[in-house]
Amino acid sequence: MPIDIVLDAMGSDKAPDPEIKGAILAARTLDVRVHLVGPEEILRPKLREALKNAAGPSFPGVPAKRAKLPIFISQASEWISMEDKAALAVRSKRDSSMRVGLKMVREGKAAGFVTAGNTGAAMATAKMVLGSLGGIDRPALASILPTSSGGPCVLLDVGANVDSDPTNLLQFAVMGSEYAKNVLHVHNPRVGLLSIGEEDSKGNTLTKETLPLLRELGERGVINFLGNVEGRDLYNGAADVVVCDGFVGNVALKTSEGIAKLVNESLKASLKSTVTSTVGALLSQKAFKAFRKRLDYSEYGGAPLLGVRGVAIVGHGSSNDRAIMNGIRVAAEFAQADVNAAIEAALADPTS
Amino acid sequence: MPIDIVLDAMGSDKAPDPEIKGAILAARTLDVRVHLVGPEEILRPKLREALKNAAGPSFPGVPAKRAKLPIFISQASEWISMEDKAALAVRSKRDSSMRVGLKMVREGKAAGFVTAGNTGAAMATAKMVLGSLGGIDRPALASILPTSSGGPCVLLDVGANVDSDPTNLLQFAVMGSEYAKNVLHVHNPRVGLLSIGEEDSKGNTLTKETLPLLRELGERGVINFLGNVEGRDLYNGAADVVVCDGFVGNVALKTSEGIAKLVNESLKASLKSTVTSTVGALLSQKAFKAFRKRLDYSEYGGAPLLGVRGVAIVGHGSSNDRAIMNGIRVAAEFAQADVNAAIEAALADPTS
Repeated sequence: MPIDIVLDAMGSDKAPDPEIKGAILAARTLDVRVHLVGPEEILRPKLREALKNAAGPSFPGVPAKRAKLPIFISQASEWISMEDKAALAVRSKRDSSMRVGLKMVREGKAAGFVTAGNTGAAMATAKMVLGSLGGIDRPALASILPTSSGGPCVLLDVGANVDSDPTNLLQFAVMGSEYAKNVLHVHNPRVGLLSIGEEDSKGNTLTKETLPLLRELGERGVINFLGNVEGRDLYNGAADVVVCDGFVGNVALKTSEGIAKLVNESLKASLKSTVTSTVGALLSQKAFKAFRKRLDYSEYGGAPLLGVRGVAIVGHGSSNDRAIMNGIRVAAEFAQADVNAAIEAALADPTS
Repeated sequence: MPIDIVLDAMGSDKAPDPEIKGAILAARTLDVRVHLVGPEEILRPKLREALKNAAGPSFPGVPAKRAKLPIFISQASEWISMEDKAALAVRSKRDSSMRVGLKMVREGKAAGFVTAGNTGAAMATAKMVLGSLGGIDRPALASILPTSSGGPCVLLDVGANVDSDPTNLLQFAVMGSEYAKNVLHVHNPRVGLLSIGEEDSKGNTLTKETLPLLRELGERGVINFLGNVEGRDLYNGAADVVVCDGFVGNVALKTSEGIAKLVNESLKASLKSTVTSTVGALLSQKAFKAFRKRLDYSEYGGAPLLGVRGVAIVGHGSSNDRAIMNGIRVAAEFAQADVNAAIEAALADPTS
């Protein structure tokens, strides 16, 4: 039984091409029906063109064209760009592809929504259209980070909320834990509170007030709580879920992007300058390809917005067709695992 | 005229060996007199031994042994370990090498203090023994980060203060700017406020309240203010000084360490698995050596503690002799540049 996923066709930096190609990849390889949302006059000819090309050499390894792929177009006359101010765009663009797509989720026409567009606008629209889950004061955006142990680390919140209070962080912990368990298939996920030292005495007012709440949640068996963790633990596999205020999480994430880029560039420059040009360039190209694949965030299919009444995945603006397909896959898994029911149950029943 | 620098001989993870070797390197190559502080019965024989070996092959490129190197030992019967709780150790170990060394700075017997020991204890002891500069409510620890543009980026605070207020951040901005200008020789350093978006509307309560204060400081010409910057700007050369609360800065710094380690390990693994073993190992060893040198934090000689009435540099616990020597060099430059007078002047005079 295929699952219906709505895809914002106008989200990514190069929209709608990666979206259309990603939808084709998904429709071919997953048990999904993809609903592309955007201006039909733009999408229809591009989809037709892409389907024609898709039979050719641009998708090696993909089975030959089926009689008819389950890809549909839903009309939306507007879209929100990366440059749009989120708050303003959400109010003024009433027929945006995000809003139309999320409405389809609310109305039960689809099980999940995927966009590679403006993150702030996606979060604001999803909160407005879908509303929050029972027991959740503020939805949170979760980033799935790669670690040296090979498993993913769920970091939340990474940007939806600043000036969080201890209750927000407690809810983030439950949401992250249920997501790791049900979608990432981590057994008994270890949850850490992001601080500046492992001892209970280390941290700021927010973490010190949050620590006893999470410890109590751990004692009740709702989460598997580790205590405080540090920035370096995001990438060493010491925790499966790490909880923090959205300002702190966003700084951590963008700092990571910054230093990864620096390290990558520096190492490339060093390789180039130290190895014999032809051999070296060839060898390092191969190594870098393997390396990028290993650290490729897009394999995780983007950031889930947790705590809204529905399924919403926000991908990177630079998503390619493969990342879009993974976003669709993750949205389908998220919906089928029924994470939201698990979150509500964990927060509702103090004896669970 | 040589300058007197006090070195905590019992600070680093492998103390006192890196300290003794670093002191010898510094005494040979810089115009300094180094005062090693610690238990004389431990230091005296080790120093004698090291001086004997230093003439040999362990310090290639260093000029032959002088008649007498300007290295002295000052007695302290105790030391603070990495495992000691900072607050407790500062109170209970009244004859610690840190405390004795910082007292020498306060009494004018030395121009600066260097330690690779317990960061929390070093900050607490420095604040207690030296006191704060005029106009400074809270001293801050600054980390000097490498960037892709080649210049350093001064990030502060990275751990001394949590729950900062806008006035603290304003003082951090002035301290960081004066340090960049006077010690790192950055012309008209560009100061950014760490936030989660460049627009003025992005951020949390603290950054939104701090922004107008920094802008006013910029309009008065006290600093060269850029506005908000993001985590990725720490490493791309977009700013010379970045200001944030100590909790946020500490998370950013430790997250950076974590991902740098992950990227390094992953790339090494990829290189090993894709290139022919012998050739590949050789090539990558060379490249990694050049790479590490380029990103080596120890070249900047550790983190200056800004805002105390004196000069104090806190190095990494894993510091080697070279890092210790650089710490001594930076302490001497910090003292000679008279950064503290510049900080007091910038904060005292609203028309400067």
